[in-house]
Amino acid sequence: MNSKIVIIFLSLTFFVHAQDDTAQIKNIYSTSLTNGKSYEWLRYLSNEIGGRLSGSLNAELAVEYTKNELEQLGLDKVWLQLVMVPKWVRGNPEFAYIETEPGKTIPVNLCALGGSVSTPLQGLKAELIEVQGIEDLNTKNRADVEGKIVFFNRPMQADLISTFEAYGGCVDQRYDGAKEAAKLGAVGTIVRSMNLRLDDLPHTGAMSYGNTPVHERIPSAAISTNDAERLSGILKIEPKIKFYFKQNCKQLKDVQSYNVIGEITGSQYPNEIIIVGGHLDSWDLGDGSHDDGAGCVQSMDVLRLLKETGVRPKRTIRVVLFMNEENGLRGGRKYAEVAKKKGEKHIFALESDSGGFTPRGFSFDGPDYKINQILNWKPLFEPYLIHYFKKGGSGADIGPLKNDNLVLAGLRPDSQRYFDHHHAANDTFDAVNKRELELGAATMTSLIYLIDKYGFNDIQHQSKIKD
Amino acid sequence: MNSKIVIIFLSLTFFVHAQDDTAQIKNIYSTSLTNGKSYEWLRYLSNEIGGRLSGSLNAELAVEYTKNELEQLGLDKVWLQLVMVPKWVRGNPEFAYIETEPGKTIPVNLCALGGSVSTPLQGLKAELIEVQGIEDLNTKNRADVEGKIVFFNRPMQADLISTFEAYGGCVDQRYDGAKEAAKLGAVGTIVRSMNLRLDDLPHTGAMSYGNTPVHERIPSAAISTNDAERLSGILKIEPKIKFYFKQNCKQLKDVQSYNVIGEITGSQYPNEIIIVGGHLDSWDLGDGSHDDGAGCVQSMDVLRLLKETGVRPKRTIRVVLFMNEENGLRGGRKYAEVAKKKGEKHIFALESDSGGFTPRGFSFDGPDYKINQILNWKPLFEPYLIHYFKKGGSGADIGPLKNDNLVLAGLRPDSQRYFDHHHAANDTFDAVNKRELELGAATMTSLIYLIDKYGFNDIQHQSKIKD
Repeated sequence: MNSKIVIIFLSLTFFVHAQDDTAQIKNIYSTSLTNGKSYEWLRYLSNEIGGRLSGSLNAELAVEYTKNELEQLGLDKVWLQLVMVPKWVRGNPEFAYIETEPGKTIPVNLCALGGSVSTPLQGLKAELIEVQGIEDLNTKNRADVEGKIVFFNRPMQADLISTFEAYGGCVDQRYDGAKEAAKLGAVGTIVRSMNLRLDDLPHTGAMSYGNTPVHERIPSAAISTNDAERLSGILKIEPKIKFYFKQNCKQLKDVQSYNVIGEITGSQYPNEIIIVGGHLDSWDLGDGSHDDGAGCVQSMDVLRLLKETGVRPKRTIRVVLFMNEENGLRGGRKYAEVAKKKGEKHIFALESDSGGFTPRGFSFDGPDYKINQILNWKPLFEPYLIHYFKKGGSGADIGPLKNDNLVLAGLRPDSQRYFDHHHAANDTFDAVNKRELELGAATMTSLIYLIDKYGFNDIQHQSKIKD
Repeated sequence: MNSKIVIIFLSLTFFVHAQDDTAQIKNIYSTSLTNGKSYEWLRYLSNEIGGRLSGSLNAELAVEYTKNELEQLGLDKVWLQLVMVPKWVRGNPEFAYIETEPGKTIPVNLCALGGSVSTPLQGLKAELIEVQGIEDLNTKNRADVEGKIVFFNRPMQADLISTFEAYGGCVDQRYDGAKEAAKLGAVGTIVRSMNLRLDDLPHTGAMSYGNTPVHERIPSAAISTNDAERLSGILKIEPKIKFYFKQNCKQLKDVQSYNVIGEITGSQYPNEIIIVGGHLDSWDLGDGSHDDGAGCVQSMDVLRLLKETGVRPKRTIRVVLFMNEENGLRGGRKYAEVAKKKGEKHIFALESDSGGFTPRGFSFDGPDYKINQILNWKPLFEPYLIHYFKKGGSGADIGPLKNDNLVLAGLRPDSQRYFDHHHAANDTFDAVNKRELELGAATMTSLIYLIDKYGFNDIQHQSKIKD
């Protein structure tokens, strides 16, 4: 053939493929919206099981439930991967108040941060010092801080469009606050909840003492945004008021748990592995519907939707429900460790861990030429209002897999409401919209379908033809 | 100047303008998200006033409240425009049940449709005929329908991505159902609520008898989607069951009401008018927060945000809060009629009437070359994830202004949750997210800012330079 004929032939091939892909993706979306399973799975995880803190009975029930459900899908393999996880327990409900003068108290909604030590049995009462974050704390003298409770009150920045960016700019107060405050002799820390709304719910989340010696660790808790505003207001008038809180959380010994894994083995390239996942554990205050029940059930439905729409994958498609993202990342680390040990070749990993809201697109981490190849598919997603394809983070659980060749990706749903619910008692099933969840599952399935169909070498080829 | 120098000069001008616009739009978004008024205005309209059905006391309270608020913004003019509106009242709460056999009943959540006549005082009981819409009804014989209640049960099509499209494909059952059923001798109609969710809330909305003679008009109501599913299931087994409902709504005489209007008079081209608006009336079951309290407060904040960010408009910017969109469109018609009589030159009209959810973009109706000019601004909106700029509908209230030169536009928020709340008891303030509402106000303000700055001739010019 001469080069003109080659070009015509290849263009025609691409055209036929693009037509196929358009129809297949339409089928995926229609099937998810009219015959999806994600919402029913999430209802069970949320309402029949509930919050799934690592090491809890609920977490084990969730392992059992999702394994059973995957087994019913007729996958080629379903298995559990043993992971040792930390077991932190909240204990009795926390109790807190502001004491404006002896005997005059104002109740405060407070929750222990995950990983925190308890207060003394009788609770902890001290004066406060309010700071606008760790940098601000480090401008203080030991004399300003010693014997006090440090009140971290830097709000999330409201004029950022991505609420994840606003979270990223604030969460060090929660994670490292106690460690830093202890260095200056503080007796405890409270942090303004990572929440852009003003409401009454405290939001928990992980904190770390780093290498602070055990006897120097101070209890650390979050208070609601409304309480943070109120407390800050009172402190401006009465800097000598006291704050009381009591919590009896504790860190127990590590226990056994599992990543739940299922796969459709590739028909042509079984050794090229594509994974899609979320994390099965959650915090304990709500039922973990958005964080990250949604990501788990969407990932499970990716494999089911491929089967339902008649796709027989060329490559191995694996769903991984990771254990212990919230307070340890042990599941993600274990999965990567085992994959490395076995010499498995992962070509693509997608995580959904940003809530079950209307999907807007994906962010990618990996070699530019591979990401650019994916960008060529943008037009296929346009009918579904999926428009966001950018370099950026992917997901915590798939992070340990990172290498120079692998493309990691994160589903990017609309982020505006996420931190209203994140790690709080209102992260519940009723806050998830069925269609939004299903659109997310369809969006993930469509991308996995394309990656499987073209692989990365094929894509490079296609992209040249298209240009 | 030779042509090269002209091009360099004009390019530079465009570059400087684009830089200005980037900074100005950033300022608009930041101000809306950190110092917006829309959410507080909506709280008042929703929680302190409530549902605002045309002709009701609440509608008049809303007129008074919004007029007062606009007056406090220091606009150049604020006024009321008299409109005669229909006054339909729901009367006592409706009551309905399925009678599977004499004495055995299942309660049903039902609401009268806006404009419907009442049932007889003692209610109406009859056998049912289920149809999948008006086309399906028209395949029936008079003998199948006569003396029965027609049950319109075509669901909204779940696999359409735009829920408005799904609504458009279904709403004829609600609007024209009674008129068509009466022709075949039906004694009443019930319609499955226009809702993609399965839940227990009936959704009201306008219906019309067209030119059906008064004595032939039959009562018409909506039932919840859960009840519609249940009823349909029972009918498959027991086609002879009866349905009972009672409602005592009525249509009273037209009463006086008002459009609420405020403007900043243009500094250079006062006769070129740009309007932005929503409708102040709502249905009565909820408090009309999404439909369309949101659109009203966003439109009010457009003028305020322009002032707050230091814009002195060249053209006249007018906010119009239309009365009676829901059951008459009298406000929209009156506004257009007066504008025509006065010979006012409107160059752009923007309506927000699709809920206070995360904005995705705009749809436009008008001359292609003008719409294409607007499309050149898309990159300015990208940082705010505003990506949808398409030809399509605009808004009901601004429709009567349509002419060959005018560009009409509608804000297009994410549509997935809209019909969960639309015209139902859960269209309430708590279902509106502050940030999402404020992002909508900022998106509208940014577009109005650009239209005002460049006008349509200027835009044509700019767009050429850019190409």
